[in-house]
Amino acid sequence: MKKSPLIADKEGWRTVREESKYKDKYVEVTLDEVFTPTRPDKPAHWTVVHRKTAVIVAPLTAAGELILVRQERIPARLHQWEFPAGQVDEEDSTDEAVVRAAALRELREETGYELAADGELINLGVSFSSPGFTDEHCHMYLAKGVVHSKEGTAYDDGEGITDCRAFTRGEFRRMVAEGELNDAHTLSLYARMCARGIE
Amino acid sequence: MKKSPLIADKEGWRTVREESKYKDKYVEVTLDEVFTPTRPDKPAHWTVVHRKTAVIVAPLTAAGELILVRQERIPARLHQWEFPAGQVDEEDSTDEAVVRAAALRELREETGYELAADGELINLGVSFSSPGFTDEHCHMYLAKGVVHSKEGTAYDDGEGITDCRAFTRGEFRRMVAEGELNDAHTLSLYARMCARGIE
Repeated sequence: MKKSPLIADKEGWRTVREESKYKDKYVEVTLDEVFTPTRPDKPAHWTVVHRKTAVIVAPLTAAGELILVRQERIPARLHQWEFPAGQVDEEDSTDEAVVRAAALRELREETGYELAADGELINLGVSFSSPGFTDEHCHMYLAKGVVHSKEGTAYDDGEGITDCRAFTRGEFRRMVAEGELNDAHTLSLYARMCARGIE
Repeated sequence: MKKSPLIADKEGWRTVREESKYKDKYVEVTLDEVFTPTRPDKPAHWTVVHRKTAVIVAPLTAAGELILVRQERIPARLHQWEFPAGQVDEEDSTDEAVVRAAALRELREETGYELAADGELINLGVSFSSPGFTDEHCHMYLAKGVVHSKEGTAYDDGEGITDCRAFTRGEFRRMVAEGELNDAHTLSLYARMCARGIE
């Protein structure tokens, strides 16, 4: 898998070796040997699960509602509400324009919504899923001003999407408070929105 | 790895097969064959990365400050601030008392803080790291009222913890807003706090 510059070696980090132990279309497991900023003399050894770069979008309507999709998540045996999200399949996932296009594509395919003519796709940074074991990270966007698209949704049964609904901000906040929303990327995006006063 | 009841088969879910493809001390990769609520006739096939149950704690002092640790995260090649967190090593990670004890242990070992005599450990539910590929989930707690413990910290160099500091709520909020905090579990816990008005 092509590496995002976000997880490339930077000051103080030097990768000596990455030994592939398992690989399929979805994940690769490597044993890494790495010099780190605080361990410049003796490399650390670590198991790393590699995943493609991801995108997630908080779709906000002019009426102030947030759009969620309900999706079956096989690894967690859960059927739950989340913001629309997906992976960046293009090789050049390091290009901001490619990542933005992937975000708009996932928005449209999973919810049937698209940015309005006067809508705005606002970059809210990145979150790392679980940086103790995986390099997976997710670019977060607020799609401010979304409307129904002419094309509608486009996903196959394999994705396990079963519903899509608009929620008021009050409903959404209650679902976060009461633990009905428990996808870390959906929660991370909401955290960024709260801290920026977009709540 | 022992399964948490959170990821056991429940209504509509039936696991036919889990074929182990890779396993070490830290992760196990299986190929699962699973009937899901919306696919009762034809099982889905999915790659799943298994991890132990995790815990994360937001330590809040009487003065209203939040305690963070700075940690090297090898998979992400990052050296960043996070809430103290760790894994539940005990076999019986399904017992709430065991999970709470793990949360208090991680708090003390990583920060040197402990609950004050009149402190309270408040359960804020769970977040799933990235339920499209892993069963990893993290029990989130607010440790309301923490003080320096007599024992101090207890971690080894391998954990890559390099600093621990108290941050005012304003500083913390700014770090979330500006993308200085980007660990999904730290952000998820903050989202739950915001939604409950604990911000």
